[in-house]
Amino acid sequence: MEIAKLGEFGLIRRLTESIVPAQASTLKGVGDDCAVIAPTEGEVTLVTTDMLMEGVHFDLIYTPLKHLGYKAVAVNLSDLYAMNATPRQVTVSLAIGKRFQVEDIDALYEGMKLACEKYGADIVGGDTTASMTGLAISITAIGTARKEDIVCRNGAKETDLICVSGNLGAAYMGLQLLEREKTVYLQQARESGGNADMPFEPDFAGREYLLERQLKPEPRRDIVGRLKEAGIRPTSMIDISDGLSSELLHICHESGCGCRIYEERIPLDYQTAVAAEEFNMNVTTCALNGGEDYELLFTVPLSDKEKAEALEDVKIIGYISKASQGKVLVTRDGAEFELKAQGWVMPSA
Amino acid sequence: MEIAKLGEFGLIRRLTESIVPAQASTLKGVGDDCAVIAPTEGEVTLVTTDMLMEGVHFDLIYTPLKHLGYKAVAVNLSDLYAMNATPRQVTVSLAIGKRFQVEDIDALYEGMKLACEKYGADIVGGDTTASMTGLAISITAIGTARKEDIVCRNGAKETDLICVSGNLGAAYMGLQLLEREKTVYLQQARESGGNADMPFEPDFAGREYLLERQLKPEPRRDIVGRLKEAGIRPTSMIDISDGLSSELLHICHESGCGCRIYEERIPLDYQTAVAAEEFNMNVTTCALNGGEDYELLFTVPLSDKEKAEALEDVKIIGYISKASQGKVLVTRDGAEFELKAQGWVMPSA
Repeated sequence: MEIAKLGEFGLIRRLTESIVPAQASTLKGVGDDCAVIAPTEGEVTLVTTDMLMEGVHFDLIYTPLKHLGYKAVAVNLSDLYAMNATPRQVTVSLAIGKRFQVEDIDALYEGMKLACEKYGADIVGGDTTASMTGLAISITAIGTARKEDIVCRNGAKETDLICVSGNLGAAYMGLQLLEREKTVYLQQARESGGNADMPFEPDFAGREYLLERQLKPEPRRDIVGRLKEAGIRPTSMIDISDGLSSELLHICHESGCGCRIYEERIPLDYQTAVAAEEFNMNVTTCALNGGEDYELLFTVPLSDKEKAEALEDVKIIGYISKASQGKVLVTRDGAEFELKAQGWVMPSA
Repeated sequence: MEIAKLGEFGLIRRLTESIVPAQASTLKGVGDDCAVIAPTEGEVTLVTTDMLMEGVHFDLIYTPLKHLGYKAVAVNLSDLYAMNATPRQVTVSLAIGKRFQVEDIDALYEGMKLACEKYGADIVGGDTTASMTGLAISITAIGTARKEDIVCRNGAKETDLICVSGNLGAAYMGLQLLEREKTVYLQQARESGGNADMPFEPDFAGREYLLERQLKPEPRRDIVGRLKEAGIRPTSMIDISDGLSSELLHICHESGCGCRIYEERIPLDYQTAVAAEEFNMNVTTCALNGGEDYELLFTVPLSDKEKAEALEDVKIIGYISKASQGKVLVTRDGAEFELKAQGWVMPSA
């Protein structure tokens, strides 16, 4: 169905009519000038926002819209967990290009609702508008925490242990696979004279894990829960969206310290290593700079070493040092390299 | 300066280093995974978000970036005032195309900071990313209010008086003027063989007010203040972003009522009328559907009639009726028309 057939208000009604707020703190959800949120007794409010732009953050040739909606919410919730907060509400702004049908936006919303339900957040508002070009998604997530439980980037101290959840580089390798199959697909499409119905079987056998890491990341609520259970209070924490290097440098910058991490200790999935080999890439570089893993990077006091070692799906990869000792990666053969940041770069297209 | 020269983190640092939170409730502003906001004693939190897309909401040929930044914040604060809340914090997400220089983003931010300072809100976070195409701005504004002071869209009751602040249609006429001069400019540029330095004097003499209404709208904090001083508690309120018709229909829909407004009572500025004449447009249609005036539309109990009449810069334009009596505009010659909504329509380009 064409979006024009529903109009702005019809589209908004269709997307939001099935939303029933579940959080006690949601006093008023979608449908007025603002949402209204009650304070959570004894807690403060945390706010984070992330914008996903078509052509920069996602490519609709290989990104199902439902997955995209899920990811758009997940990456925001990841920021809340990275400060040890509990998600409560999200607002969703969409700018929609002409080529989208109502059913496309339904799928996008379905994914967003799924992520919200799973992690206990209400969609309480947003903005739906037209775009002259691609799809733009802007989400703001709101959470709460007891003030004393909040973990910032600036609390790391000398001798603290540096820990990482899950494994790194998989989302980046998933992206490489998707980009490769896209290239093959576009070439076959050209050769078949632009036939859109051309049969095409992407070659992803045995790589499902890498694709899932790229297309449907999960924020690590479980890790935050395990830390609490284990009685560990991280001294600093951040989620890994831009790659381990960038995030660790943020912690060092904010905490005024240095770090020393060991290449051999960086957690990698077997599939990541196989794919890196196949693409002739250095797997450590993928883990350091690949980004989009949405794992948690955190530091714990040395006195919690045994507890940290016992944590499921968490690995100690090094320790915090004096600022004067630099930010160092020690390779498998004992060589030392300075860690470098890498944020986004303007796309060249 | 090219943005690439600074990189993502350098750009964010440049834009945010001069931001000093002024609100007592801002516990942590820019610089971590989330902002942290303390509850305001005895108040609840209100959240609203608006997205502005290049080519849909603004045209950079005639929109100065500083004004655009100001407007992007102002339209969000307008939603907070429309619920009788006080602005406290905003988050700012920008997606920036390749053609922008660092100085452009500086100007945009300057405008945003100016609006925030004027209305007492802190910039506490955001996201800065690349865009493959145009500029996208997504702002979320956070405010507080005592729960019992919040005014929603659903409280209008039969016999309530319908009031409008300021005047309507001016922002829309400002847009027509800008579009006309743009056309003239582009034609002259074509005729001069694409000379970008071609001297061009747009003809805006005496129309400054209309341009200002389009380019630099002000949220009506003053009206909210006057209502409070006068001891008037509106039964419903909304800000006029899409035009009087749309907004009044929202109030009627949410409140389950009808309305009757009088064409002759719709507040118009003299310049709006002159410009409408010149463009051969019906000035009432401009006021009803033009949008972007960011005035307040509200209803007050009939018992507050005298107080409402005494309010500076507020006009009573009609009254609330039974739903069965419809949503009616009574023209100057006594004819009656059903009010029609008009949201955004997909641009045809």
